[in-house]
Amino acid sequence: MKARIIVSLKTGVLDPQGKAIEAALRSLGIEGVDGVRQGKVFDIELSAVDSGAAEATLRAACEKLLANTVVENYAIEIL
Amino acid sequence: MKARIIVSLKTGVLDPQGKAIEAALRSLGIEGVDGVRQGKVFDIELSAVDSGAAEATLRAACEKLLANTVVENYAIEIL
Repeated sequence: MKARIIVSLKTGVLDPQGKAIEAALRSLGIEGVDGVRQGKVFDIELSAVDSGAAEATLRAACEKLLANTVVENYAIEIL
Repeated sequence: MKARIIVSLKTGVLDPQGKAIEAALRSLGIEGVDGVRQGKVFDIELSAVDSGAAEATLRAACEKLLANTVVENYAIEIL
C-alpha cells in the first residue's frame, strides 16, 4: 500500500525559505507569484493491507518523527 | 489563485534521506514501513486569474528554480 504525507508550516509561522524562493522567482523574471510556502512530502510504501492499520502507522510516524507538531501540520493521504 | 507543486526524486535516483527516515522509524518501533522517499512541496499563491497563465508561470518556476529536472520530477496542481 502506498501513502503520501505532506508536512507544511502552520498558518502564521514565518517561512524565510518560502520568502527567499519568492524573491528568487522575481529576480528570475517570473511575475505573478504573490506567496510561497515550502513544505515536505514523504512517499511511503507500507506492508499493511488494510487502510485503518496503515493510517495508524502513518499517524505515529508523523507524531514521533516526520512533523514538528508545534509549528507544522501534516496531512495523510492513502493512495 | 492557489497552486501546489510537488517535486520528487525520479525513480532509480538514490534517496539517502529517505533511507535514513526509514531506519529512524524502525528504531522508534514503527513497523510496517517498507520504503520512504522524501520530496518537497511548494504552496504558491498566484495573482493570475486564468489557469492557463497560472500553469505557464508555475512551469517556468519549476524549470528555472524549483526542480532539478536531471534528477527530479515535478507535478503542478491548480487548487
